[in-house]
Amino acid sequence: MQARFDAAVAAICPVDRELAAKGQAHIDSLTKPLGSLGKLEELALQLFLIQEGNAPQADPMRIYTVAGDHGVNEEGVSVYPQEVTRQMILNFLNGGAGINVLAGTAGAQFYVVDAGACGGTFDEHPLLIQAKVAPGTANLAKGPAMTREQCLQALLLGIDLADRAHADGVKILGTGDMGISNTTPSTALYCAYLGLEPEPITGPGTGLDKNGVANKAEVIRKGLAANKDAVESGDPLAILAALGGFEIAALAGLILGGARNRQLVSVDGFISTAAYAAAYALCPTVKDYCVISHASAEPGHKAAVAKLGMTPLLDLGFRLGEGTGAACAMYLVRSAADMYNKMASFADAGVDEAE
Amino acid sequence: MQARFDAAVAAICPVDRELAAKGQAHIDSLTKPLGSLGKLEELALQLFLIQEGNAPQADPMRIYTVAGDHGVNEEGVSVYPQEVTRQMILNFLNGGAGINVLAGTAGAQFYVVDAGACGGTFDEHPLLIQAKVAPGTANLAKGPAMTREQCLQALLLGIDLADRAHADGVKILGTGDMGISNTTPSTALYCAYLGLEPEPITGPGTGLDKNGVANKAEVIRKGLAANKDAVESGDPLAILAALGGFEIAALAGLILGGARNRQLVSVDGFISTAAYAAAYALCPTVKDYCVISHASAEPGHKAAVAKLGMTPLLDLGFRLGEGTGAACAMYLVRSAADMYNKMASFADAGVDEAE
Repeated sequence: MQARFDAAVAAICPVDRELAAKGQAHIDSLTKPLGSLGKLEELALQLFLIQEGNAPQADPMRIYTVAGDHGVNEEGVSVYPQEVTRQMILNFLNGGAGINVLAGTAGAQFYVVDAGACGGTFDEHPLLIQAKVAPGTANLAKGPAMTREQCLQALLLGIDLADRAHADGVKILGTGDMGISNTTPSTALYCAYLGLEPEPITGPGTGLDKNGVANKAEVIRKGLAANKDAVESGDPLAILAALGGFEIAALAGLILGGARNRQLVSVDGFISTAAYAAAYALCPTVKDYCVISHASAEPGHKAAVAKLGMTPLLDLGFRLGEGTGAACAMYLVRSAADMYNKMASFADAGVDEAE
Repeated sequence: MQARFDAAVAAICPVDRELAAKGQAHIDSLTKPLGSLGKLEELALQLFLIQEGNAPQADPMRIYTVAGDHGVNEEGVSVYPQEVTRQMILNFLNGGAGINVLAGTAGAQFYVVDAGACGGTFDEHPLLIQAKVAPGTANLAKGPAMTREQCLQALLLGIDLADRAHADGVKILGTGDMGISNTTPSTALYCAYLGLEPEPITGPGTGLDKNGVANKAEVIRKGLAANKDAVESGDPLAILAALGGFEIAALAGLILGGARNRQLVSVDGFISTAAYAAAYALCPTVKDYCVISHASAEPGHKAAVAKLGMTPLLDLGFRLGEGTGAACAMYLVRSAADMYNKMASFADAGVDEAE
């Protein structure tokens, strides 16, 4: 597994910035004041570079919402019972969750992936990919959440998801998560990868009160101590195994695989950005291929995104996960591609340029 | 005209806030943590109230991009020649402008309206509504831009546009503008309606340099002095006539008409927000029916929006006008309506609620 993973990461290439002048010249030729479509122009150029200087294509788009459970749930870090992960997978399959609706509005394909929900397998369903590494991680407050092998298995699952999408012609990937208690491992990962302290970036998740947030920060501090060797090893994979989760590792793999396949990845909120932090630690070149779709309302997200040197596209006060923010940003990516491909130039339209 | 206008304004009713509890209860019953879809939930509730407690509908949507020219252009306040207004109308009709593309991506209908471009009438076109009040306003630096009658005519044009959309079943209106030099009257209107000073809120528009911006602020200051009586009258219509433009007054009318028809209005950037400021001065109830679609990159927009007590939905660095920001926000309104109508409730989905 390690060799397959290493080969995938080694195959990630930076975009060729020499192409930027050509893409920018086209954008600047379109009938609008220079730079006046702001972030849409940046997105169009990013997509142009990712797609190797071809007219950028945004469709088809696909969101993978990856689910997993967390041993740390036993520390009382969520207001929802663990069963909800499994119930929400069924809700996804029945089309009733936020991500079903928003992926539909965005015109994105949608699949749900069981990377490690508690309980057994699910009935077969055309929208469900069953790839359970194990029924929930171990409790990170007491030791590693995953073994190194489990973590590699989840990473390779994510890479496979990107490849499957690539085989289907998918140009834009969206990351989504479902896992009760998964803001806890995500926060721990921010601490380990970005050198942040638990207390300032620990938030209410789905609705903890003040005492609950304080307990959660304490649990994260315990987890960092219990996994001191991994945290201090500087080995990104060891950190991800110690403090992550099956869905988080799979999403990191999805980001890595997307970068290898030259797919733009729309990274959802707090959990997905932790997966991005892991992918970035494993291979910083993923930055060329990713956008942080939105600023999560989960308080620690802002500091983490800033440490990662990224700027979220949207700020809608979302804190749902599932890929809901990724879906909204994918609409903007389509808008950017349409701008690039469908606007007239000053010359073609017979419009005078600025004096 | 005055009587017709007064009757339209008098027919604008506030939304019935007593309905909010019902709409909020439905939103809170959906399978997501309370409040976790942030601004989308607020939008859904606003639409629910606007549509009198019915399941919110976002489609069909329609953007009107209204064009006009400005006598103040002779003061050298734009880097583009005045002919560009007319050229861009033709670009709109040929489908090559930013708004054509982004309205298409958003799935919104699009019409262009000649409220006062220089030159004569245009050839007939199915997307063009010809309603020229006059070929360009007078120079506001020297006196009133419009007569009171012209201003009323433009306001009624906008109300008629809203009514025409209403007759076609349109639920969401988007405002768009085209008019070389129109950041100058817009900035003057912000000064007059909101008590702001010209210098801090005067910006580069389509690309003025530092000296150009300083000259523009001076021109605005001259205009405020030349129209002192109107500015000090406290009469919103007199202010709009003195300092506005045909497209700005028509957009103010569109906002008023939309509010009267219980249509949600997605207000575009710097110019459209000036039209909103005029509409708000004429009838503050329009606030219930409007969203400020995005934060314009034109520097004065932030201060104006804050003075108006609004928060933009998006911040994409746009400064193009035409309705491009309105179009992007209309996509979010559709997402909000879909969330309201298509998500499952905790009870229906068999998902446990928070403990």
